[in-house]
Amino acid sequence: MSTLSSAVTPKLAEIIAIGSELLTPQRVDTNSLIITQNLNLVGVEVFTKQVIGDDRERLTDAIQRALGRADIVVLIGGLGPTEDDLTRDAAAAALGRKLEHSAEQEAILAARFRSINRPMAQNNLRQTYLIDGAEALPNPNGTAPGQFVVTPRGALALLPGPPRELKPMVERELIPRLKPLLPPQVIKVRSFRITGIGESDLDTLIAPVYSKYTNPVTTVLSAIGDLWVHLRAQGNSEAEVDALLKEVGDPIAELLGDRVYSTDGEDTLELTVGRLLRERSATVATAESCTGGMIAARLTDAAGSSDYFVAGYVTYTDQQKNAILGVPQELLDKHTAVSEPVALAMAEAAQRLSGATYGVATTGYAGPGGGTEAEPVGTMYLAIAGPKGATRCSRIRHGADRYRNRTLATQFTLDLLRKSLLGTIHPKPL
Amino acid sequence: MSTLSSAVTPKLAEIIAIGSELLTPQRVDTNSLIITQNLNLVGVEVFTKQVIGDDRERLTDAIQRALGRADIVVLIGGLGPTEDDLTRDAAAAALGRKLEHSAEQEAILAARFRSINRPMAQNNLRQTYLIDGAEALPNPNGTAPGQFVVTPRGALALLPGPPRELKPMVERELIPRLKPLLPPQVIKVRSFRITGIGESDLDTLIAPVYSKYTNPVTTVLSAIGDLWVHLRAQGNSEAEVDALLKEVGDPIAELLGDRVYSTDGEDTLELTVGRLLRERSATVATAESCTGGMIAARLTDAAGSSDYFVAGYVTYTDQQKNAILGVPQELLDKHTAVSEPVALAMAEAAQRLSGATYGVATTGYAGPGGGTEAEPVGTMYLAIAGPKGATRCSRIRHGADRYRNRTLATQFTLDLLRKSLLGTIHPKPL
Repeated sequence: MSTLSSAVTPKLAEIIAIGSELLTPQRVDTNSLIITQNLNLVGVEVFTKQVIGDDRERLTDAIQRALGRADIVVLIGGLGPTEDDLTRDAAAAALGRKLEHSAEQEAILAARFRSINRPMAQNNLRQTYLIDGAEALPNPNGTAPGQFVVTPRGALALLPGPPRELKPMVERELIPRLKPLLPPQVIKVRSFRITGIGESDLDTLIAPVYSKYTNPVTTVLSAIGDLWVHLRAQGNSEAEVDALLKEVGDPIAELLGDRVYSTDGEDTLELTVGRLLRERSATVATAESCTGGMIAARLTDAAGSSDYFVAGYVTYTDQQKNAILGVPQELLDKHTAVSEPVALAMAEAAQRLSGATYGVATTGYAGPGGGTEAEPVGTMYLAIAGPKGATRCSRIRHGADRYRNRTLATQFTLDLLRKSLLGTIHPKPL
Repeated sequence: MSTLSSAVTPKLAEIIAIGSELLTPQRVDTNSLIITQNLNLVGVEVFTKQVIGDDRERLTDAIQRALGRADIVVLIGGLGPTEDDLTRDAAAAALGRKLEHSAEQEAILAARFRSINRPMAQNNLRQTYLIDGAEALPNPNGTAPGQFVVTPRGALALLPGPPRELKPMVERELIPRLKPLLPPQVIKVRSFRITGIGESDLDTLIAPVYSKYTNPVTTVLSAIGDLWVHLRAQGNSEAEVDALLKEVGDPIAELLGDRVYSTDGEDTLELTVGRLLRERSATVATAESCTGGMIAARLTDAAGSSDYFVAGYVTYTDQQKNAILGVPQELLDKHTAVSEPVALAMAEAAQRLSGATYGVATTGYAGPGGGTEAEPVGTMYLAIAGPKGATRCSRIRHGADRYRNRTLATQFTLDLLRKSLLGTIHPKPL
């Protein structure tokens, strides 16, 4: 039985990721990010992260030291069925406790193997041992249960390594067990996801607002063509925290305007576009050249996207732009495939051929080679054909990095569609 | 002066990344991957990685402990000019040595500021202090020199945090200084990238070969539908190392057979497919339903893919499968869209409509919803139409995870094409 009513007041956490594969040049621990995010939301700060190989002695030593420094120690991985999986043993040794077989865990594991119609190997029984005093954390997505134990030296959690097992366990099992041990406080976040502005321009725009405050804490993150502003406030009451997030968040929202595509921090641009299409009973079709199917792939990433995604055409050559989309050969000859008239003709063709409300199109020199003197590598035209024949095209130029160019063209084409749906940009009648 | 002629023989390294920003939910240390890769290639193994916040006491303690365990300790970051940049102080304290001002470093720094036409701030002088006995590592890409010191307790390196400063410093400054301290040896790698087999089946297949050897070191890494076997051998001569890689690698290659799609460790599956298409002067077109453009996007990821990628169709609804691809409505009514006849009809249509040598197609219930009793969620048909009307279809079923299903279907369809091109599977005449 766990001693959840312990006197510990965890505030500082230490995370130890276990596995020799995490010490290769190819692997990086990302689980600790999920854990950090969830701990931060209940007021716990992470002050050290470690990666330790599959070495019993070193691991036991690391856990022991961590328990001496932190209020909460979270161990990731090493809960599998093989001899290499040493986390249970090392954690028990560090605490000076025994591992005890759990008949209940064995029954759960046996049922799991029956349900997937596979025999349970003998070594899976290793996964049915719990540290004396630990509570098992259910794992509906895998064979290894987590473990949670509160000791006079602090709380210790053992979590499985696969992110799809770890993430729900952190959110549904670990955090609810930690919360009662923590001092009461209210923590809330407010997020903005943004596209269509660079990171330094964004910071120049909003730093005058947020830099005056240490609470909320403001973080700006960037990916290609994608930015995230994240405010985290803490206080003694909902009202206090809401007021802080409003005081800092509202001026930021106003400065960012329609560049914000999501305010919940989770929705991707394609999910936002999908929601807007669905709300308007509108549909979309794509005609892609330089993005080669990436826009269609992102639009269909969401479950239920058949509600609004109709069809996609990837026309990579002039000949196919003519044959499949009916772009007139004379247009291609006169302007080349990388031109505004051809981008618009592609968007209109996608719309017309599929019967969708909107057609979007891309054509460009993604790089690293290609381009002309007038239209150098990196030049990409992004077009939209809207209801009633209204069209719009924008041109971007961002150098010769192919991956970056394709990602930017995909992102900005989705954003063109979003702004058209919002009515903040207006395609013009032909 | 450094004591480079020291008696230490570094073999085990510990990496400590310093900076509170690396303990947020958004940031992950990737510098350690660059360092690990370079250390591995001179025979040094990394046995622990840590991330420590900007805390002098904790950092000093961590460096001290690391020096007690490892032969080489590498510190990343915290070399900036501000009060928060504590690495120099903590490292000196951990060694019990003083920091000494270097007139030479001050001259270098002053020249750097002159060259970019900016005044040098007073606090930049912090960057001109070296640990007693340390050698400065030149940093042409930033203001903070690295430091390298060999002590009776082991070697210690201080490296700047920005990857564009760190990477060249590791390759050009750190490794050349470590090499003379290491036992002379030759190190080489041999890699296999594999698809079409699960990680545990792969391990069952090849572990009997590699597990008898500690040299070469064998690593198996996995992503969705994608595996990587990596052998790293060390020895006293090229001939010895080549023989080891042959002794272990050749039987593995034989066991894996045509599941290996790349032997250089770098080529992606789409690059391999592209190369095979180009070598055969063959082309491909795609007709995608459940993968929604992902196959086309991957095939066009490579520069020059217009040599072999002709066209892609994303037909997400029955109506579009009929309208765009001409899949007979009676076929859709009789078998549903998720069926072998429809998958084959889609592949043939892609081939016929585009004039490509090969047509490939996907249709399935990607999830998380959908499916029928006969064809549950996760059922996906992958089809290929080859030259002379030869076709082939395979069915996969992998649960309800949409992202995983779409990725697997994309990967396995590309692999179906690869094996057809190799002639190791044979599409059958209709």
